[in-house]
Amino acid sequence: MQISKRIQGMGEPALLKYYPLVSKAEARGTKVYYLNIGQPDITTPPSFMEKVNAMKNDVLAYAEPEGETALRQEAVKYYSKYGFDYGVDDMLITNGGSEALLFTFLTICNPGDEIVTPEPLYSIYKEMASACSVGLRGIMTYTEEGFALPDKKAIEAVITPATKAILITNPGNPTGKVYTKEEIERLRDIALAHNLYIITDEVYREFIYDGLSYTSPGHYPELAENCIIIDSISKRYSACGARIGFILSKNHSFMEQVRKLCQMRLAVSSVDQLGAAELFKLDTGFFDDVLKEYTHRRDIVYDCLKNIDGVIFKKPTGAFYYVVKLPVLNACDFIEWMITDFEYQGATVLLSPANDFYIHPEDGVDEVRLAYVLKDSDMKQAMEVLGRGLAEYRSRFPEKSR
Amino acid sequence: MQISKRIQGMGEPALLKYYPLVSKAEARGTKVYYLNIGQPDITTPPSFMEKVNAMKNDVLAYAEPEGETALRQEAVKYYSKYGFDYGVDDMLITNGGSEALLFTFLTICNPGDEIVTPEPLYSIYKEMASACSVGLRGIMTYTEEGFALPDKKAIEAVITPATKAILITNPGNPTGKVYTKEEIERLRDIALAHNLYIITDEVYREFIYDGLSYTSPGHYPELAENCIIIDSISKRYSACGARIGFILSKNHSFMEQVRKLCQMRLAVSSVDQLGAAELFKLDTGFFDDVLKEYTHRRDIVYDCLKNIDGVIFKKPTGAFYYVVKLPVLNACDFIEWMITDFEYQGATVLLSPANDFYIHPEDGVDEVRLAYVLKDSDMKQAMEVLGRGLAEYRSRFPEKSR
Repeated sequence: MQISKRIQGMGEPALLKYYPLVSKAEARGTKVYYLNIGQPDITTPPSFMEKVNAMKNDVLAYAEPEGETALRQEAVKYYSKYGFDYGVDDMLITNGGSEALLFTFLTICNPGDEIVTPEPLYSIYKEMASACSVGLRGIMTYTEEGFALPDKKAIEAVITPATKAILITNPGNPTGKVYTKEEIERLRDIALAHNLYIITDEVYREFIYDGLSYTSPGHYPELAENCIIIDSISKRYSACGARIGFILSKNHSFMEQVRKLCQMRLAVSSVDQLGAAELFKLDTGFFDDVLKEYTHRRDIVYDCLKNIDGVIFKKPTGAFYYVVKLPVLNACDFIEWMITDFEYQGATVLLSPANDFYIHPEDGVDEVRLAYVLKDSDMKQAMEVLGRGLAEYRSRFPEKSR
Repeated sequence: MQISKRIQGMGEPALLKYYPLVSKAEARGTKVYYLNIGQPDITTPPSFMEKVNAMKNDVLAYAEPEGETALRQEAVKYYSKYGFDYGVDDMLITNGGSEALLFTFLTICNPGDEIVTPEPLYSIYKEMASACSVGLRGIMTYTEEGFALPDKKAIEAVITPATKAILITNPGNPTGKVYTKEEIERLRDIALAHNLYIITDEVYREFIYDGLSYTSPGHYPELAENCIIIDSISKRYSACGARIGFILSKNHSFMEQVRKLCQMRLAVSSVDQLGAAELFKLDTGFFDDVLKEYTHRRDIVYDCLKNIDGVIFKKPTGAFYYVVKLPVLNACDFIEWMITDFEYQGATVLLSPANDFYIHPEDGVDEVRLAYVLKDSDMKQAMEVLGRGLAEYRSRFPEKSR
C-alpha cells in the first residue's frame, strides 16, 4: 500500500528516541531533569476552568468555523495593547498554532514552492513544509552572534523564483532571539521588494527580557498585504492542552481563502474557546509575574553556563530556551551518554539535540537546546549535573571532545 | 500575493449563501425550520461535563500526540462491542473526524493521485481532496435505487492507475444509505484486486434503522492492510463541539506515518479528550433511546413526503438525512424562493441544495438534502410548510417545474 512521499519525507521529533532510555534511567532510580521540552510548569490561570465549569449548554454544538465571536472580541482587545489594530474579521481561530501554520502553508504555497526561514528553526516547520510539499531554505544564524540576521544581500541570496514567504519565530524557538526593529525592517524591505509574505510566529510574545522592546511585521501598515501572524495561547497562558491558535492578517483575499480550510474542518473545540476567552481578559500583571520567574531561571542558567568549560552561548533575550554549543563532537552522543551512563547525586539531565532544529541534520551537531522550565532549585541542580557530566565526558572521551 | 491553486480550487459550503437571506426572513418575523444542517438537538450526555468539571490539574498540559491513553482504552471497549478488535495502538485521536480524513488523504496520496467514492458524497470530501491536491472520481448512485452501489464492473471502470483508495460513508451522508454485506464484500474484492485502501467513514454507525445489520470493511481480517476507519464522537454522542475524531487501522506502516502528522500538530484538546472518555463508558441503552427518536422523525418525514406530489425518494435506513428529488428544474432556485418569498402560518424551511454533494455541480440540480433533526411537532410542521411551498412554487412557476 502506498505511503505518500510528502509524509515519508517527514521526520520524527529527535527527542522520541531518548524516551525509552529515560524510562530505563528512571527505573534504575535516577532522577531525570527534563530540560528538553517547552511545557511550562506555570499554573494555568484558574479563570479558564471556572468559565468552563459554569457552562450550561445542553448540547455541545459546533462552534463557528472562523472561531467564536466572543473569543475573537477579547483577542481584539489583547492585540490592541500590543500596538496592533486587528479586528474580529482579521483573525481566525485554529486548533493550536500548529493548524494556523499548516493552513497558512497550504494557502500560500503550491507544491514545490519554497519558504525562507532563519536557522536554527522550530523543528516542526520542517515537518509542516514536507506535509505541504513545500521546500524550506535556511538563512544561517549563529550562537556566537546571538542569532542576529545576516545582511540584506545574504538573505536575498536564498530567495528564488519559487520563494513565497519569509517565516520567522519572534521571539525565537530554539534561539531565544528577539529581532530588533532594524532586523524586522530589513525583512520588511525584502518582503516588499520580492513580493513575499512574512509569516511571523509570535507565540512567545510575552517572553521578552531585559526591557527589550518588541517589534512585529504586523506593526507596519505597508506590510498589510504581506504579514501573517501565527499565534497561540499555549505558552502565553500555560495552556498547551487547550488547542487554541490564531491566524491574523489584513490581507483579505488570503483570509477568505484560509476561511475555506476552517470550514473544511468545521470547528475548534467549543469548551477550549470558552475558557480561552477568559484568559484574554487577564490583565498584564499576570505576565509580569511570569516574566520575573523566567528571567530568574534564565539568569540561573547563564551563571551556571559561565562556569562550564568550553561551552559557547549568548544570554537569550526571549522565549525560554538556550542554544548552547558544547565542547564535544557529537551532542547526540553526549545526550545519550548522560542518560545511560551518568549520574551525579542520583540525577541526570535530558537535553534536546540541536541538529533537529536545522534543515540539514549535519548542522548543529555539537549544539543542544536547553529549556529553562524548571523552578529555581531544580534548575540549579540540573545545571550542576550538566556541568559535572560534561567534564566527565570530556575526560573519559577526549577523542570525542574538543 | 500568491494564493495556492489547491486552496483556490476549494469551494465554500453552498449553505453559506443562504444565511444572509435567512437573517432577513427572521427579521421579517418568519419562523425558519433548519432542515439543512446535521447538528443534532439531542442533549449531550452530562457525564462529559461532569468529568471535565471534576478535573483538578494545575497546568493544562499537552496531551499525547497519539491521543490520551485513557480515552483510547475506553474506545477499545466500545469498538469490541461492534465486532472490531482494534487495540490502543491501532487508533489515533484527531481534532474531529475532519482531521482524521485530512491526515489520511495526506498520508496515502501524492499530489495528483485519486480517490474513488460513491456520489452523492459528503461535500467536505471535495474540499479535503482539493487541499491535498488529490483528485476525486465518483461512482454514481441514484435516489430511485436507494443509492445502491453499481456492479463490480461499473466501479472498476472508475479506477485508474492513479487511484489509491475507495472512500465510503457508511451509513451515508447525505444518502442515508447503509451498505449491505454484499456491497461491502464487492468493495473488498475490488480493493484487494487493485491494491487499494478502503477508507470507511463511520461517524453515523449507531444511526441504523429497521434492525438492519451493520457491516464494516474493518470486520474483514483480509482487509487488515487496506482498511482505514474514520470516526468521530460528534453525531454519536451529540458532541459536535468537542473535536474528537479517530483514525483506526491495522496497517502498521500507515499508522506509523500518520503518527508523524499527529506529532506535527502536537496534541488534541485535553479537556475534550477527558470528557470523551466518559462518553465511551455509556451503555448502549443511550443509543436505543436516540435511535427510537430518530426512527420516529424519519417516519414522520416519510409519511409527509408520500403526500407531496412529484417528489422522488426512498426511505433511508441510516444517518439522519433524506436526499429528495423535487419536481422542479433547479433546487437552488426553489430553496431561495422558500426563504425570500414564501411562508405558511408564519413559517418557512431551509434545505440544502444537493448539487453540493456531487463532484460536478450540474449533477443533482433538482435534489435537496433534508436533515430530520427537529423534534416531532416541529418536524411535522416543517414538512407541512415544505409541501405547501412546493405546491405554490409549481403553480406559480410551471416553466421551472416538472
